[in-house]
Amino acid sequence: MFSRDVAHGARPVGFAALYFPTCTMSIHDLTRKLQLKNDSKIVLLVADGLGGLPLEPGGKTELETANTPHLDALARRGTLGLSTPVLPGITPGSGPGHLGLFGYDPLAYQIGRGVLEALGIDFDLGPDDVAIRGNFCTLDEDGNIADRRAGRVGNEIAAPLCEKLDQIEIPSVEVFVRHVKEYRLVVVFRGEGLGGDVDDTDPQQTGVPPLEPVARNEASQRTVEVAKQFLAQAREVLKEGHPANFLTLRGIAKRPPIPTFEEVYGTRAAAIAVYPMYRGLAKLVGMDIIGPSTTLDDQMDWLARSWNEHDFFFVHFKYTDSTGEDGNFAAKVKRTEEADACIPKILALDPTVVIVTGDHSTPSKMRSHSWHPVPTLISAEMCRYDGSEAFGESQCRAGGLGQFEAKYLMPMALAHAGRLEKFGA
Amino acid sequence: MFSRDVAHGARPVGFAALYFPTCTMSIHDLTRKLQLKNDSKIVLLVADGLGGLPLEPGGKTELETANTPHLDALARRGTLGLSTPVLPGITPGSGPGHLGLFGYDPLAYQIGRGVLEALGIDFDLGPDDVAIRGNFCTLDEDGNIADRRAGRVGNEIAAPLCEKLDQIEIPSVEVFVRHVKEYRLVVVFRGEGLGGDVDDTDPQQTGVPPLEPVARNEASQRTVEVAKQFLAQAREVLKEGHPANFLTLRGIAKRPPIPTFEEVYGTRAAAIAVYPMYRGLAKLVGMDIIGPSTTLDDQMDWLARSWNEHDFFFVHFKYTDSTGEDGNFAAKVKRTEEADACIPKILALDPTVVIVTGDHSTPSKMRSHSWHPVPTLISAEMCRYDGSEAFGESQCRAGGLGQFEAKYLMPMALAHAGRLEKFGA
Repeated sequence: MFSRDVAHGARPVGFAALYFPTCTMSIHDLTRKLQLKNDSKIVLLVADGLGGLPLEPGGKTELETANTPHLDALARRGTLGLSTPVLPGITPGSGPGHLGLFGYDPLAYQIGRGVLEALGIDFDLGPDDVAIRGNFCTLDEDGNIADRRAGRVGNEIAAPLCEKLDQIEIPSVEVFVRHVKEYRLVVVFRGEGLGGDVDDTDPQQTGVPPLEPVARNEASQRTVEVAKQFLAQAREVLKEGHPANFLTLRGIAKRPPIPTFEEVYGTRAAAIAVYPMYRGLAKLVGMDIIGPSTTLDDQMDWLARSWNEHDFFFVHFKYTDSTGEDGNFAAKVKRTEEADACIPKILALDPTVVIVTGDHSTPSKMRSHSWHPVPTLISAEMCRYDGSEAFGESQCRAGGLGQFEAKYLMPMALAHAGRLEKFGA
Repeated sequence: MFSRDVAHGARPVGFAALYFPTCTMSIHDLTRKLQLKNDSKIVLLVADGLGGLPLEPGGKTELETANTPHLDALARRGTLGLSTPVLPGITPGSGPGHLGLFGYDPLAYQIGRGVLEALGIDFDLGPDDVAIRGNFCTLDEDGNIADRRAGRVGNEIAAPLCEKLDQIEIPSVEVFVRHVKEYRLVVVFRGEGLGGDVDDTDPQQTGVPPLEPVARNEASQRTVEVAKQFLAQAREVLKEGHPANFLTLRGIAKRPPIPTFEEVYGTRAAAIAVYPMYRGLAKLVGMDIIGPSTTLDDQMDWLARSWNEHDFFFVHFKYTDSTGEDGNFAAKVKRTEEADACIPKILALDPTVVIVTGDHSTPSKMRSHSWHPVPTLISAEMCRYDGSEAFGESQCRAGGLGQFEAKYLMPMALAHAGRLEKFGA
């Protein structure tokens, strides 16, 4: 019914076997075993990069500055806390950030750069696909790299080159090449027996030639052969393409095997996201992708329309992150208020549990993702109300959820929805 | 010198080896190594199901509503916190709840239903015993289950049937059958070579026959043979017993091998509990059972009488849980006040460390155990006083112990008692 993790190793002889705890269980072992079905509905609203920083001591964060009457009302009838996406001090990318929120230990389930890049352009990756992030580069006459990004070549040049590369044929392997933006592209090899553990060919410096692909294990040897054939043909295709007269391969990876939401939580999950990367991450864990939508209003419409067919809803809001990345405090405040404005539409559907959080912090002061723990709100009938007055970092710090690893958010969501039975008698 | 725990286990194939971390020590590896003897006395008062919920936002929990002058005084000279029995969102049964308080990782030491049921009737389980929870059921003429609980048959019928079943003889195995209540009974097979990993025979539905017992491993094959012989004889014994004309076997399990308190902590521990299940759990970890007692006053008498022979005292108070399970907020408040009233008797003995906590929360709002973290109080001379004014969930949320996994309570108890030496030089 459920697997067990062996929790120990070598021990004092004669003692170990008898006394020491043999097994322990992962979160998913527990949720697999304890999951219950009922009619509850759980909404997880992820305001990307929600956490912020005050600009100076005594100041307010973006979330605390924003006028968020609906989130504040939710906070008063819920429980707050701060979630740590990976570990204290560790700044997550979008992949680990979301996997943590979805309850998958981001240290156990790692997603290669190539896979994320493919998800980010809505490429439908299969289990036999090796995904690669490609960078156009400029080679000099000696074959050494003169520019690792091909002078950030424009889309109007790079896109047609990708179409040419997409024509490359390799026996018994399907090859896909898709342009992403400027010098960035995605390469996918589809075929049996292709491992995903191959080193980058980008030497991370100029004045030297690109590296040859090297397998990190036997299972990836065939991928190396395919990559070499691809690179040989690409060199021909691109030879007149200066500054984009070659490419490097990075983040070569396969889609990791991840158990589905249905299996580990017993929920039929829907993902409602404007941007492909977040749809892709949701698809990795087996959520149904609902849409398309281009605005939060669209997303709210889809939420209502998919309400009866699902019981878990992941709604992704991008702009709290992008404004943070822009270093625009005022714009992040405004985007936070936009997220606040959608709360009544969610509540009109009468969800059992509403969670509002982010996949990480993106303080506009830093213009980047950060390690700071993320404000989190759970509102449900069975909350231990914690006297919170508003939704913000300071209130969350004193909240009833305490500071917790993001991977525990899903068990808490299920618990508040009455979807986990008692563990042990 | 010390062993290492491999901190991971089964993972998606091909993934684990590459990515997952390595080795660490368990709590018990540490306490075994660091334990010191002295004259200190530690009292652990477990008010079962202590944690609660306010009925509405801004409201008070049962503990916060109760008038608890003695607990509040302890809180002022102690340190408070909230303990998580298993993991966030996971609701524990009494077994995992108490093992956690006793410092045993409840995910590593799992106690089968049959074992708990046997402990609950004071059956003295040995290491060679396989314990089984039996349910009388009603079979129809075709041998299909018509009622999984035999119409909740009365004690006056069920008890004599258990006495008859207790007469069953199986070569080279001792068979014990004990009535519990209504349709519930305990079956124990005692003999060498009996494994404890056998599936339930209860099909969890009516209209189908009971399942045959099936071993989950080779070591339990003999148990299956014994169970089949037992069931064949039971069918004869019960054939005229309608509605209790057969039984199903559930939670088939052996007592897990658990290191003793003496060994892992170096303490002589006493358990003072009114109800057999809690005496049984204490016995599993090697505590001496002190009693009998039927009231908290009795328990306080036994505490005083056993004071010199022991240095750790587990006192169990049941009624904060049972009133919570009844959904009776006012009664839980009253029972909490009863627990408060025993504190002066404990303090009169001049203990070094007093801990008051619960094995889990049982909010009367939910009428069941819950996942909410449990108010916890440590009072000792060496506490870092945290300014707490009273004992309650809100004060605990802001307390100096923070939110912690229950399994860390024992090392903290030992530390405050001066019973752990420095780790490393």
